Amino acid sequence: MPDSAVLLIHCPDQKGIVAGISGFLYAHGANILHADQHQDHDLGLFFMRVEWDVKDFDLDEAAFHEAFRALAGGFRMQWKLAYSKARPAVAIFVSQQQHCLLDLLYRHRIGDLPCRVPLIISNHPAARELSTFYEIPYHHIAADGNRAETEAAQLALLQEHHVDLIVLARYMQVLSPGFVERYRQRIINVHHSFLPAFSGARPYQAAYHRGVKLIGATSHYVTEVLDDGPIIEQDVVRISHRDQVGDLVQKGRELERVVLCRAVQWHLENRILHFAGKTVVFD
Amino acid sequence: MPDSAVLLIHCPDQKGIVAGISGFLYAHGANILHADQHQDHDLGLFFMRVEWDVKDFDLDEAAFHEAFRALAGGFRMQWKLAYSKARPAVAIFVSQQQHCLLDLLYRHRIGDLPCRVPLIISNHPAARELSTFYEIPYHHIAADGNRAETEAAQLALLQEHHVDLIVLARYMQVLSPGFVERYRQRIINVHHSFLPAFSGARPYQAAYHRGVKLIGATSHYVTEVLDDGPIIEQDVVRISHRDQVGDLVQKGRELERVVLCRAVQWHLENRILHFAGKTVVFD
Amino acid sequence: MPDSAVLLIHCPDQKGIVAGISGFLYAHGANILHADQHQDHDLGLFFMRVEWDVKDFDLDEAAFHEAFRALAGGFRMQWKLAYSKARPAVAIFVSQQQHCLLDLLYRHRIGDLPCRVPLIISNHPAARELSTFYEIPYHHIAADGNRAETEAAQLALLQEHHVDLIVLARYMQVLSPGFVERYRQRIINVHHSFLPAFSGARPYQAAYHRGVKLIGATSHYVTEVLDDGPIIEQDVVRISHRDQVGDLVQKGRELERVVLCRAVQWHLENRILHFAGKTVVFD
Amino acid sequence: MPDSAVLLIHCPDQKGIVAGISGFLYAHGANILHADQHQDHDLGLFFMRVEWDVKDFDLDEAAFHEAFRALAGGFRMQWKLAYSKARPAVAIFVSQQQHCLLDLLYRHRIGDLPCRVPLIISNHPAARELSTFYEIPYHHIAADGNRAETEAAQLALLQEHHVDLIVLARYMQVLSPGFVERYRQRIINVHHSFLPAFSGARPYQAAYHRGVKLIGATSHYVTEVLDDGPIIEQDVVRISHRDQVGDLVQKGRELERVVLCRAVQWHLENRILHFAGKTVVFD
Repeated sequence: MPDSAVLLIHCPDQKGIVAGISGFLYAHGANILHADQHQDHDLGLFFMRVEWDVKDFDLDEAAFHEAFRALAGGFRMQWKLAYSKARPAVAIFVSQQQHCLLDLLYRHRIGDLPCRVPLIISNHPAARELSTFYEIPYHHIAADGNRAETEAAQLALLQEHHVDLIVLARYMQVLSPGFVERYRQRIINVHHSFLPAFSGARPYQAAYHRGVKLIGATSHYVTEVLDDGPIIEQDVVRISHRDQVGDLVQKGRELERVVLCRAVQWHLENRILHFAGKTVVFD
Repeated sequence: MPDSAVLLIHCPDQKGIVAGISGFLYAHGANILHADQHQDHDLGLFFMRVEWDVKDFDLDEAAFHEAFRALAGGFRMQWKLAYSKARPAVAIFVSQQQHCLLDLLYRHRIGDLPCRVPLIISNHPAARELSTFYEIPYHHIAADGNRAETEAAQLALLQEHHVDLIVLARYMQVLSPGFVERYRQRIINVHHSFLPAFSGARPYQAAYHRGVKLIGATSHYVTEVLDDGPIIEQDVVRISHRDQVGDLVQKGRELERVVLCRAVQWHLENRILHFAGKTVVFD
Repeated sequence: MPDSAVLLIHCPDQKGIVAGISGFLYAHGANILHADQHQDHDLGLFFMRVEWDVKDFDLDEAAFHEAFRALAGGFRMQWKLAYSKARPAVAIFVSQQQHCLLDLLYRHRIGDLPCRVPLIISNHPAARELSTFYEIPYHHIAADGNRAETEAAQLALLQEHHVDLIVLARYMQVLSPGFVERYRQRIINVHHSFLPAFSGARPYQAAYHRGVKLIGATSHYVTEVLDDGPIIEQDVVRISHRDQVGDLVQKGRELERVVLCRAVQWHLENRILHFAGKTVVFD
Repeated sequence: MPDSAVLLIHCPDQKGIVAGISGFLYAHGANILHADQHQDHDLGLFFMRVEWDVKDFDLDEAAFHEAFRALAGGFRMQWKLAYSKARPAVAIFVSQQQHCLLDLLYRHRIGDLPCRVPLIISNHPAARELSTFYEIPYHHIAADGNRAETEAAQLALLQEHHVDLIVLARYMQVLSPGFVERYRQRIINVHHSFLPAFSGARPYQAAYHRGVKLIGATSHYVTEVLDDGPIIEQDVVRISHRDQVGDLVQKGRELERVVLCRAVQWHLENRILHFAGKTVVFD
């Protein structure tokens, strides 16, 4: 893959946005690799993701900001620029179950996830061995006492490592609104149900008792309201009356790690825009 | 397919049930075609479906009841016997949208549904033409006035035609508890969401606003509580940010008719047992 | 939905294409509704679909051709323009099984398929009743004699009705290379297997004997080589050892009609580009 | 889960088999936990799996063989008995790619796979670290020389460890007919396509060039004919024109490990019967 840059935009919809952006990129030597756009007609909003090869591109990051300002202002754009060379820092939070963590670490190891993982934080010691195997520093911070203290310790680590994204890989603690606010739109969680069905605790038990014929898992950005943030990805698997709760847990593990890893990968590839409680995922 | 009989059973679980039933059937010359069983360990219940070729079977329906009584009583069985030659009578209820009705009528025509359809009841005139094409009597009973009167007219027709099963093929009226009670476990509805998510009215709009990545449909037995009866079948289809509410409606039509037709076919093939708000579907 | 126009393009990939096209459309007052593009890096090709509201657009079809010529030539584009107001004429070919035909006619009736259906052609009389119900002229042309004569009769009808697209809705005759050539890239077929597995005759029997755990269906453009044309859509459904060939046929019917209808709808919405034996479907 | 025993049977179909077996088990105090049966009407064969709680069962393995002989002989049964307490020995073969191995080892660690894994054999050193982490002895046997010598070394290890099942977890060498014969019906492979499509080498490249819209993976028993053995499990995932070969490889990894692990688990739970090149999987 060549070194590339991605521009993510949303703004009020009006004529001329695509012409403006593509003209700007062309004028500066960009070779466009992918471009996708979306209009939300109800909200009157325009969304765009464009990725280009930076080989002949004549603007570095600082120069881009300077040069793009007028165009962006004219269309009242909210925008984000990311160069593929800059690898964001991801912190993974985990509790006792390690299937999601394992999958993230393996994918990171083989190069599927374009990021650094400077640390893993857990309220249990269970995953230390696995983290050590993958050579990621492991921080055990107990969560059975005062939440403010626990979060203060976590936040200190996150700041120290300049963390860009937090992934809750079956981390079974609820984060405070203050914590969430500080990493707004930068915390991805996996919930082990097909949201909005079975939000809250013990979704497999709830699914079993309701007698559904499919179970699901959902990855989403975390907001102050539990299990209510913008959904990034969902998937389901068929079950039958033969499946007991333990079977649901086993089948659900497959879903959980897949929907979480997809969400993390898409976030890291700058494919996700969100607004009004929903996501646009440019695949 | 040979003429066959199906026995559906549930009873408290204990040793010897399968030996008892299979010994009984063997003694009377049954050639077993399929047999399936299930234990609900939480509830201590045993479920069984057994189907046999009746060619050499030496009991007719009346004789079966007489001969089976002792065994059934000993195990405190609840049981149902159905011979494939007896085609149950199905009434289809429909409102304006005809995709589910169309599918049911086509499948019935080509022989997929082992039943008679003596009548279609609708609160709209819209489906009269289609019903006439498939040569099924169509009864337009308006539902905009007094519900008791509407239901009285419907019930009179159902009784006149000795209806065994009512299929709500996108029938957009809520049935009274008294009506439901009279056809308990014999009314199948399709709801256009992945229940329990988005129960009630306008599920596609609700799914759109929540930003889910899959939409679903659910077929279930009707109980007094809206959208709460035992689920028979569910399926989902992937959507994206590109799909507007109208696209969800279009994609959902595929799901609705498929999950409804599967449920009706399974019911007619005597594959479904239900208890405690859930179903066992022997496929 | 507003009246719109769609431009489909493919050309050698180079810088400036998107800027050129979006600048052109903006200059003529187009309000872009959707745009999507794709690069095939192996082949060095660029593909684009752009759709715009024509309300303020200042070019009619003839003027567009005149005005777009220079730009298109500069990039060596192959392109196609379609206004939503122009409804293409679709001929449906069918043999004895009617499930695909039924679905196409129902979707056409409720407005899902933006086309006219001036005729249905069949080598059997079986579907006449259904065609009459949907008010489409039905032409029974026997196919048990000389193929050249059969096709001559078919072609005369197609020309008389200025047919733009032929849909083979389980039409069980092989078309001659000459026929295919005349409607190159304008004949869509459905094959009842997951191609390239089980091409040719009796795919459900072949699938049964191989013991696969999923069966599929495939819609594709027809080329001179049987079951080898560019694939438009595929889907699968799970089967088990309990399913006999007859069950596969029943389950497969669901797939066949869905993958065929999707392909026809995408073709009619000008979402499909094809090249090198493959399709790009802009969804 | 209670200690249990499983009996797997196939024999010519005739009346009285179920009665005979269930009567036998009841007479010896078995509490049946699950029972499932299947008739292949074409072949005139009967298949059954029955699992019972051994708590009150009055036969140990040797006594069972003695007591069951007459019944089994009368129905000309081929049968297999397995007690859950006896954990079979599984050898995993792997080459360079470790995603399937990783999943098997993790599932084994958390208790999903009822077996021992006494050794891993590889033609590469790559997976040694991972094997060591999971505390499984790792044997690197190069496969770039004489196949007979390589296989002799492998067979010596397999015999030494009394291996019951060989799992080829993306092992990229073809086994000799003699090797396969020795572990007939006890070697499970995963092929990275939806067989029978794209058998042989480089299936992702072949799928990419054919332009399919779904890719698949298949787990199967190994026979002397490459990629032709009885299929145990298959699954697919949707792809689009946006996916390059590398994307297919990434998406396919999810499928490969899931279909392989399901097959291994089902084999270990004695859920699979096979005959005539196909499997019956009692789920």
